[in-house]
Amino acid sequence: MAYEFKTVRSVEFYETDMAGIVHYSNFFRYMEAAEHGFFRSLGFSVVTDHTHPRIGWPRVHAACDYLQPLRFEDQVEIHLLVSEMKTKALGYVFRFRKLNAAPPLEVARGKLTVVCVTHDTEGKMKATPIPKSVAERIQVAPAELLK
Amino acid sequence: MAYEFKTVRSVEFYETDMAGIVHYSNFFRYMEAAEHGFFRSLGFSVVTDHTHPRIGWPRVHAACDYLQPLRFEDQVEIHLLVSEMKTKALGYVFRFRKLNAAPPLEVARGKLTVVCVTHDTEGKMKATPIPKSVAERIQVAPAELLK
Amino acid sequence: MAYEFKTVRSVEFYETDMAGIVHYSNFFRYMEAAEHGFFRSLGFSVVTDHTHPRIGWPRVHAACDYLQPLRFEDQVEIHLLVSEMKTKALGYVFRFRKLNAAPPLEVARGKLTVVCVTHDTEGKMKATPIPKSVAERIQVAPAELLK
Amino acid sequence: MAYEFKTVRSVEFYETDMAGIVHYSNFFRYMEAAEHGFFRSLGFSVVTDHTHPRIGWPRVHAACDYLQPLRFEDQVEIHLLVSEMKTKALGYVFRFRKLNAAPPLEVARGKLTVVCVTHDTEGKMKATPIPKSVAERIQVAPAELLK
Repeated sequence: MAYEFKTVRSVEFYETDMAGIVHYSNFFRYMEAAEHGFFRSLGFSVVTDHTHPRIGWPRVHAACDYLQPLRFEDQVEIHLLVSEMKTKALGYVFRFRKLNAAPPLEVARGKLTVVCVTHDTEGKMKATPIPKSVAERIQVAPAELLK
Repeated sequence: MAYEFKTVRSVEFYETDMAGIVHYSNFFRYMEAAEHGFFRSLGFSVVTDHTHPRIGWPRVHAACDYLQPLRFEDQVEIHLLVSEMKTKALGYVFRFRKLNAAPPLEVARGKLTVVCVTHDTEGKMKATPIPKSVAERIQVAPAELLK
Repeated sequence: MAYEFKTVRSVEFYETDMAGIVHYSNFFRYMEAAEHGFFRSLGFSVVTDHTHPRIGWPRVHAACDYLQPLRFEDQVEIHLLVSEMKTKALGYVFRFRKLNAAPPLEVARGKLTVVCVTHDTEGKMKATPIPKSVAERIQVAPAELLK
Repeated sequence: MAYEFKTVRSVEFYETDMAGIVHYSNFFRYMEAAEHGFFRSLGFSVVTDHTHPRIGWPRVHAACDYLQPLRFEDQVEIHLLVSEMKTKALGYVFRFRKLNAAPPLEVARGKLTVVCVTHDTEGKMKATPIPKSVAERIQVAPAELLK
């Protein structure tokens, strides 16, 4: 059972804006990439059809606190922690650290709440219990890590 | 004195993802575009050098609640309301409505907190009071609109 | 029958990069938005299921020549011209003009070649003749406009 | 002296569009990321101030031929080759290969022409000879690799 995942990426030029820093919307893309890496680390893909009917994970809440800017070629670690697990929803928190600082510097904190859904024949989304094969591999992180 | 701004845009193909809906990170781009339109409606640009020293408005907090998906060619109204005004910071809330629904449908709610900064000679950001020329044109929206 | 379409947009902050100008990849997004506006001007959508079987328009070639940079809040006109029409493919050229210059300034020229496809039951794309309902509304622009 | 660079990336969810494939504009972002990796492999950054005056590399031409679509979680290798070197400009070609296919499958070919510039005091760009420290590390790829 897993409750965390870490990934490191290098800031790309096209992720910056004219203020010379990573555009704030891209932190949400970084969070999602970490979430998908977390799923792969559990042995399945967010998208691959590993369940019947096929499920999806739309976001219902997203938030980010920005502490320090990130710049081109910064090395940023995204640390995902499972903060909540309900029958039909998962909560994550994210810690962003700039590794090319001494010591490494926390630059942002994020949050996501995602809901497990299936799609009806018209494509409408409907919340559904997280499949057992997924749920049994995930647990909430220890409280002291979530502070 | 102004406390709100509305803008309408049509969802572009490149704003969608493989789930067939607007990628959740793009709601933060929509918020920012509305914020910049609000500034233009007050008679100045977020970027144009209308103050000395030149100021910037980095985000310190951003959040969004997603109620309904948006799809290609949907008409979405973004309604910005000033929710808070401090010496060095502004708070906004955003209401997203899909206009091509009958009746128009609220699809998301967002929040931004931005801080007024100047840059020192090394490019480091430092919070600074909002210039009087800007502050005197902005007020907090009536409480009943912020519920 | 139509052979051209014009649209104007204002450069958004999130479309710029740390060089202070519109990121070069975004010109391809502007082209596509003009292409979709062209389709809407003909009375149908690139995506709406107006044909059976449903068709798509993947790109097989895209190119852009950059003459001048675009900056935040520039007003840019994208002028689409149909440059070629084959049984299964369309060619477009695009002229980008910055309107907030006196006189308006050509800043870029683009090209797209798109192919009309259907998808087989496994989702694989296969080139197909452009439906008559679409083809009969489109013609190639006069040669003197394409120089 | 170097004439090529290879990098591999995994397709992210946010790089796809509602057609279920990587949006065509993102191939230009992949090219740029490979170009910047090439510069780092030579020992300097595209941005870091390794020259006086500081130089930039705006694009004057970009093109891409699309052969096969890329999908979420595909492993794509971007192979950069220097195709041309002039006093003030560099030309690159790019080969995109999907590695999670047997055998690996060429999915696209790209081209970039970039010009070396300095900025005058008003921020206007002016073409300038490529600094010797950069030029002496780069050579054009053998003709047989560029076919």
